[in-house]
Amino acid sequence: MKNKYFSVLPIGGVEEIGSNMTMIRSHNEDIIIDCGMLFPHEDCFGINYLIPDFSLLDPTRTKNIIITHGHEDHIGALGHLLKEFPDLTVWVTPFTLHLIQRKLEEHKITMKYQMYKPGQELAFKDVDVIPVHVNHSIPETSGLIVRSKKHEWGALYISDFKVDLHSKHELPIDFNTIKNKLSECNQTAYFIDSTNVMYDGKTTSENELHADLAHLMNRSENRLFITMFASNVHRMNAIASLAKASGRKIVVMGRSLWTYMESAREAGQTQIKEDELFKPDQVKGQNGKMLIFLSGCQGDFLSALRRFSFGEDGTFKPVPGDVVIFSSKVIPGNEKKIFRIYNKLTQFGVEIITAYDYSIHASGHPGKEDLKLLLKNFTPNFYFPIHGESYMLRKHAEFIKRDYPKVSPHIIHNYQEVILGDGEIKVEDHDVKEPRLIHGKAIEIEKTQISQRRKMATQGAAFVSYHRSSGHIDISTVGLPLMAEDHKEQLIKRLIKQIQSDLATRDEKYFKDQLKISTRQFYNHLLGYKPVTEVHLY
Amino acid sequence: MKNKYFSVLPIGGVEEIGSNMTMIRSHNEDIIIDCGMLFPHEDCFGINYLIPDFSLLDPTRTKNIIITHGHEDHIGALGHLLKEFPDLTVWVTPFTLHLIQRKLEEHKITMKYQMYKPGQELAFKDVDVIPVHVNHSIPETSGLIVRSKKHEWGALYISDFKVDLHSKHELPIDFNTIKNKLSECNQTAYFIDSTNVMYDGKTTSENELHADLAHLMNRSENRLFITMFASNVHRMNAIASLAKASGRKIVVMGRSLWTYMESAREAGQTQIKEDELFKPDQVKGQNGKMLIFLSGCQGDFLSALRRFSFGEDGTFKPVPGDVVIFSSKVIPGNEKKIFRIYNKLTQFGVEIITAYDYSIHASGHPGKEDLKLLLKNFTPNFYFPIHGESYMLRKHAEFIKRDYPKVSPHIIHNYQEVILGDGEIKVEDHDVKEPRLIHGKAIEIEKTQISQRRKMATQGAAFVSYHRSSGHIDISTVGLPLMAEDHKEQLIKRLIKQIQSDLATRDEKYFKDQLKISTRQFYNHLLGYKPVTEVHLY
Repeated sequence: MKNKYFSVLPIGGVEEIGSNMTMIRSHNEDIIIDCGMLFPHEDCFGINYLIPDFSLLDPTRTKNIIITHGHEDHIGALGHLLKEFPDLTVWVTPFTLHLIQRKLEEHKITMKYQMYKPGQELAFKDVDVIPVHVNHSIPETSGLIVRSKKHEWGALYISDFKVDLHSKHELPIDFNTIKNKLSECNQTAYFIDSTNVMYDGKTTSENELHADLAHLMNRSENRLFITMFASNVHRMNAIASLAKASGRKIVVMGRSLWTYMESAREAGQTQIKEDELFKPDQVKGQNGKMLIFLSGCQGDFLSALRRFSFGEDGTFKPVPGDVVIFSSKVIPGNEKKIFRIYNKLTQFGVEIITAYDYSIHASGHPGKEDLKLLLKNFTPNFYFPIHGESYMLRKHAEFIKRDYPKVSPHIIHNYQEVILGDGEIKVEDHDVKEPRLIHGKAIEIEKTQISQRRKMATQGAAFVSYHRSSGHIDISTVGLPLMAEDHKEQLIKRLIKQIQSDLATRDEKYFKDQLKISTRQFYNHLLGYKPVTEVHLY
Repeated sequence: MKNKYFSVLPIGGVEEIGSNMTMIRSHNEDIIIDCGMLFPHEDCFGINYLIPDFSLLDPTRTKNIIITHGHEDHIGALGHLLKEFPDLTVWVTPFTLHLIQRKLEEHKITMKYQMYKPGQELAFKDVDVIPVHVNHSIPETSGLIVRSKKHEWGALYISDFKVDLHSKHELPIDFNTIKNKLSECNQTAYFIDSTNVMYDGKTTSENELHADLAHLMNRSENRLFITMFASNVHRMNAIASLAKASGRKIVVMGRSLWTYMESAREAGQTQIKEDELFKPDQVKGQNGKMLIFLSGCQGDFLSALRRFSFGEDGTFKPVPGDVVIFSSKVIPGNEKKIFRIYNKLTQFGVEIITAYDYSIHASGHPGKEDLKLLLKNFTPNFYFPIHGESYMLRKHAEFIKRDYPKVSPHIIHNYQEVILGDGEIKVEDHDVKEPRLIHGKAIEIEKTQISQRRKMATQGAAFVSYHRSSGHIDISTVGLPLMAEDHKEQLIKRLIKQIQSDLATRDEKYFKDQLKISTRQFYNHLLGYKPVTEVHLY
C-alpha cells in the first residue's frame, strides 16, 4: 500500500453490543471515539460491568477522545480511561458533558474537555473530524465524518442512530452535511450501526407515539405509572407535557430519571421546570391525578419499578385500579426479570400496558429502511457493519451486498484495523484483548477468580482445618444442603483415619492436598458434586 | 354448599409454567394429574430443577396418578413422588410409559402402572375420568374429562394442547368426545392452557411446515444441521423422511434425541427404522449428503448444538458452507445463550436459518383462535385459565369475559381448591407450599443455602483460622481479585493487633465473631463488598 491516510480500529463494540471504543489512527496521532462499558454476558457473579482493554493506547500519540453521545456503552468506561490517561482532552456536547461530569465527580476524577457543535470542523494533526447530528434515543447524538487533510479519504462513523424526519424534539439527521463533506472525498467508507438490522422496515419516529401516549394519559384512573429508558429525555419531555395537559401531577421515582432530567435542564434539553416534578415523599398520601415515572424498565434489582412491583416501596403500594405503562422494550436476556414484574403486578390486580398493546415505544436504531435512506443520500465505496453481534453484522453485510452491488461490504471484528490507502483498503489484525471485568469499588477482577465464584455458586464450599499436635479437625460448609451437616462426623472420622494411616509422615503440601481430595470425594459421593475446598494445617 | 361432587386443586403449574401437578379430590379419594418439574427462575446456582411440595398428599386417600403426556414439566418429578409414595398406580399411554421407565430405571425406581386409551372411561371411587386425545408438540397427549358418577358435574382439564385439524401425523383433537361427555352433565367447567393466549391467531399446524422444510432439505449443501425440541417426534419423523427423500444420510447427535426416537419406536410412533439413523462416529470423515440432528435448541450447556457451535465436537467442526436450521423457538430467558450460539456459528462462517426466515416451527399451545374452536364445540358454565404465568392467566380470563359473556371465568392460583357443588362453585385457599429445589444426586437443597451460594458468587469467600497458643493466623480467599492477595499481610497485622488488644480475654464465640467482622470490614474497605467469611479457632 503506497499511501496510508488513516485507519479505523475498533477495540470494543464490534461482534458485541456494548463497550464501544474505536481508534482513528494516522501518521502522527491516535484519536479515540467513545469509551463505553459492556454489561455482563450470561451470568454476572457480581460483575458490575466490563471495560475495554486500553493496552493499545500510546500516551505519546493519544491526546483526544471524542464522545458521540451519553449512553453508558459509550461513556461508561471513561472514568477508568481518565485514571490511566489523565491528560486526554474529552470532546463533548453540553448534555453529555453534564452526564459525564456527574459520574466523574462521584469518583473524584477531573477531566480536560472541549465542547463541540455538530457541523463544526475539528482539526487534528492528520485528519479533520466533523460531528454530524443524527437521531437516536438520547439527545445530542453525533455521527463522525473523518477526512484526511486533502480529502483522499472520508469515513462516516455512526455507531448509534435512526432516521427521524418528523421529530418534534430535534432536527432530523443532517443528511446534507454527510453528502457535502463526503462528496468532496476521493474514496469513502461507512461504519454503521447494526443493532436493528434484522428489522426490515423503517424505525418508528418518536412523534408517532404521541397519539397513543396522549390517549393513555387521558384515562380515568388517578394513578398512572410509566417506565421507560431514563436516557430518553425527548420521550420523557413528551410524556410529561401530555400528563400536565391532562391535569396530572408528575412524580419521578428513581435516581437515574432525576439525573437525566437534571442534565437535560442544565443543557437546555427540557422545558419541564424543576418545580413541576415531584419526589415521591412530596405527594405521599395524596389522591389526585398523577403520573408516576418509574426507573428500571429492564427489571433491574434495585430499581423503582421492581421495588413498586414487589410491594416494597414505602410511598406507593400497587393496588387494583393502578395502571403501569411500559414505554420500553425488553432487552434480550431480561425477559424473565421483566415477566416476573408483570406477574407480580398482575397478582396485585394492576393493569399492565406494553408496546404490544399500544404504539408507545420506538427503537433508537436503524431498520433496513433507515439504512436505505442513509445510502440514498450518499453511497460510499466501502461499508463496514459495526455495533452489533456477529450474527447481525453478517446479516447487515448480506443486506448491503444484495441491495447495493456497487458498495463493497466487509465484516470486521474488534482489533481489526481498517487501513485506508490510495484506492484501496487493507485490514490488519491486532492481538485481541479481552474486556476487563469490574466489580465493587471499580476494581478489576480476573476471569480465573470469576470461575472460582461460579464453582462456589454451583457446588458450595467447604473449609477444613487440622491441628496436628492435638489431632483436632474443624469443618465448615457454606451453601451445601442441610442434610450434609448430619454427615460431618462421618467425614471427620474418615479424615482422621486417613491421617493416622498415611499422612502424618508426609510433607505439608501433600498432607493438605490429600485432606482436600478426601473432603471433595466424600461430598461428591454424598451429593453428586464437589464443593470448593480450602484446608489450613497447624 | 349442599353437595360437593369433586374439586380441582392445582399444586403446581398455575401462575408459573412448569411443575404441573393437580389433585382431583372427592369424598373417598384423591386422584393426581401429572407430576412435573420446574426449571429455575432467574439464577440457578447449580439447581437442576424444582419439584412440587407433596405434603398435601395423603397416602390413605391417594392411590392413582394420571399422566397426560411425556413432557418434563408433567413427568419430571414422578421419580421423587414414587420414592415417597411407592404404591401409587401410574396411568399412562405407551410412548409416555417408555419415557418414564427409562428415567426411573436410571434411578432404580420401580412403578405400578396401568395403560389407558383415549376415549376409555376410567372408573374411580367417586368420579370417572375420560382421557381425550388432543394435539400438542409430543405424541400421545390427553386432556381429561372428569365427571361425577351421576353427571352432576363435568370438568375438562387440558393443561397443554393446540387444535391441529390437518396433521398428517395424528388425529385431530377429539371434539366429539368432549361435546358428548360434557353435554350429559348438568354443570361444566373448563381448566385450560394459557401458554400462548397472548397470540390472537390460530396456532400453525405441523403440516404447514412441510413445504419450507422440504425446500431446505433440497438445498445443495452437503451438510445440513437441524436443531429442534427432542420430544417433538412428529416433527422429527417429518424432517427425517424429507431428508431421506432428498438423498441425505440421517445422523442424530445428542442423547435426548436418541431417547425420544427409541421410545417412539417402541410405542409405534415412528416409521424411521433403527438402521436409518446414524451416530456421529459412524459417519466420521464421510462427505456425502447428510442431515445432522442436533439436540439442545435452547443452547443448553452440554448439548450437541452448543458443542458443535463452539467448535468443540470431536466429529463435526463448523466450516463455511455448513447450514444450521433452528426448527424451534427461543424460550424466554434463553435469548443470550442462543444468540451466543448464533454468533459463534457466524464466526465460523456457518449460515443460520431460523423460524424468522422460513415457516419451520409451530407452537404446541393454543392461540385465541384455537380456544375459540374449543369453545365453539362446547361452551362450559365456568372457566379457569391454567398453565401460565399470572399475567397470561389474567389476559386469558379477560379474553373469555369479553368474548363469551355467558361463561364465568375465574383466576385461581396454586393451592386454591375449586369445589364443584350443586349449581355453584366455591374456591377454598390452602397454605401455599413453595416448590422444592433439587441439586446433584436428586437431593433437596434449602433456599437459605442457595442464598449462601448467591453471596459467595457475588462477593467471594474468605477462610480465616487462628491458633491461640502459637499466635499463628492463616487466611485463604476464593473468588476475590488477585490484588487482594497483596493486602493479606496487612489484614493479618490488623487481626493480630485486634487480638492482642482485646480478644484474648473473651469467649470463643465472641472471638470468632470479631475476627469475622474485622475480616469482612477490611475487604469491604478494600473492594467495596464483604466476602462470606468462616473462622476456625484453635
